[in-house]
Amino acid sequence: MRLLLISNSTNAGEGFLEYPVGQIREFLGPVREVLFIPYAAVTFSYDDYQSKVQARFSELGVEVRSVHRESNPARAVRAAEAVVVGGGNTFALIRAMQQQGLVQAIRERAFDGMPYIGWSAGSNVACPTICTTNDMPIVEPASFIAAGLVKFQINPHYTDAHPDGHAGETREQRILEYIAANPETYVAGLREGCMLRVEGDRLSLIGNRPMRIFRCGTQPFEVHPDEDLSFLM
Amino acid sequence: MRLLLISNSTNAGEGFLEYPVGQIREFLGPVREVLFIPYAAVTFSYDDYQSKVQARFSELGVEVRSVHRESNPARAVRAAEAVVVGGGNTFALIRAMQQQGLVQAIRERAFDGMPYIGWSAGSNVACPTICTTNDMPIVEPASFIAAGLVKFQINPHYTDAHPDGHAGETREQRILEYIAANPETYVAGLREGCMLRVEGDRLSLIGNRPMRIFRCGTQPFEVHPDEDLSFLM
Repeated sequence: MRLLLISNSTNAGEGFLEYPVGQIREFLGPVREVLFIPYAAVTFSYDDYQSKVQARFSELGVEVRSVHRESNPARAVRAAEAVVVGGGNTFALIRAMQQQGLVQAIRERAFDGMPYIGWSAGSNVACPTICTTNDMPIVEPASFIAAGLVKFQINPHYTDAHPDGHAGETREQRILEYIAANPETYVAGLREGCMLRVEGDRLSLIGNRPMRIFRCGTQPFEVHPDEDLSFLM
Repeated sequence: MRLLLISNSTNAGEGFLEYPVGQIREFLGPVREVLFIPYAAVTFSYDDYQSKVQARFSELGVEVRSVHRESNPARAVRAAEAVVVGGGNTFALIRAMQQQGLVQAIRERAFDGMPYIGWSAGSNVACPTICTTNDMPIVEPASFIAAGLVKFQINPHYTDAHPDGHAGETREQRILEYIAANPETYVAGLREGCMLRVEGDRLSLIGNRPMRIFRCGTQPFEVHPDEDLSFLM
């Protein structure tokens, strides 16, 4: 398995995919064409999303094909050198992926070693389910089951912040609800500017902030980029 | 139809159901017993939730039965003087309501004039779908279809805030995604400390903050407590 699961496309004040571009370059290595999955886009077009990603990947000399232009999307996944799944709305993304048979096709290829890059919603759909997305359920997918490329759940954009005077749940409270309802599953709170890389059985945290780990029956705890994360695999 | 749809149970720094208790008293009028739906509770027990609600409703001389103690929950709804649906996690709530046949039972009773009170998730499930909840999808319900007591979607805890330096979507961006995917539906961004009251065909906003209205093809706009809201009905 080869995965690069990125928290967020864009750090505040930076360009789109600016901070992770070096890691994407190193991860892709000799790959010269990727298949992009743009279906998390809701308020902008798939064409525009492809162009935006192409602009950044051009710096790497990598061609970005987009699956929305393919007459047989699942076949395009089966033929791809690498798959890149963009962020946006997780529910819109997984629904389109399910409708086109992409969840299973991506799962098969990723288990066969095809490189997979996702950010935000694209990291959510690499998990067993979409249950730890931050997104609003704007459309109803066939199911919450996702590609299951890792065994744990990622919460991208993990934040400790909470607006003053607002009574809604904090992110930590939301994840504590998830683990209460799903006591067997780890949740990795992946802060912005960070990513997870999987190479075979090895999982590494990349970034300059720790990741917060949640599991039922344990106090939430922080792990750092140099720590052993094999308990998640 | 008689509905009291409350944004949040608790304002920052106040007691549970403190701010809406006067409106609840006036709305319930002669009702002396309510049936409580506690299934949005995830990290605390249904018993504890019932006790907490009873403590506040005791001020009104109202007995709180909870549906989790009933051998036939749908029959309990059909026999109730009024139904009160508490906040928590919307996905956990609607899933249990669907499993027990409560969505249809509540819908029938509410259309027949039974008073319905909800806050937060309890207001979400009064809408056509749960699609504008803020909650994390911690469990998968049978469907996103909710009781449909109103024709529009409510976003409870509506907030204009956005943590500095965080790249996740604002609330407005999330709702703009919803209306892009659902162009026929109004969304009412109901700020904390506010509630909607429905009496027959008449809808009123109660509270000291405006409500933000979203619909595809229109700029989002604010409505105030004294304004005509009949366009939503």
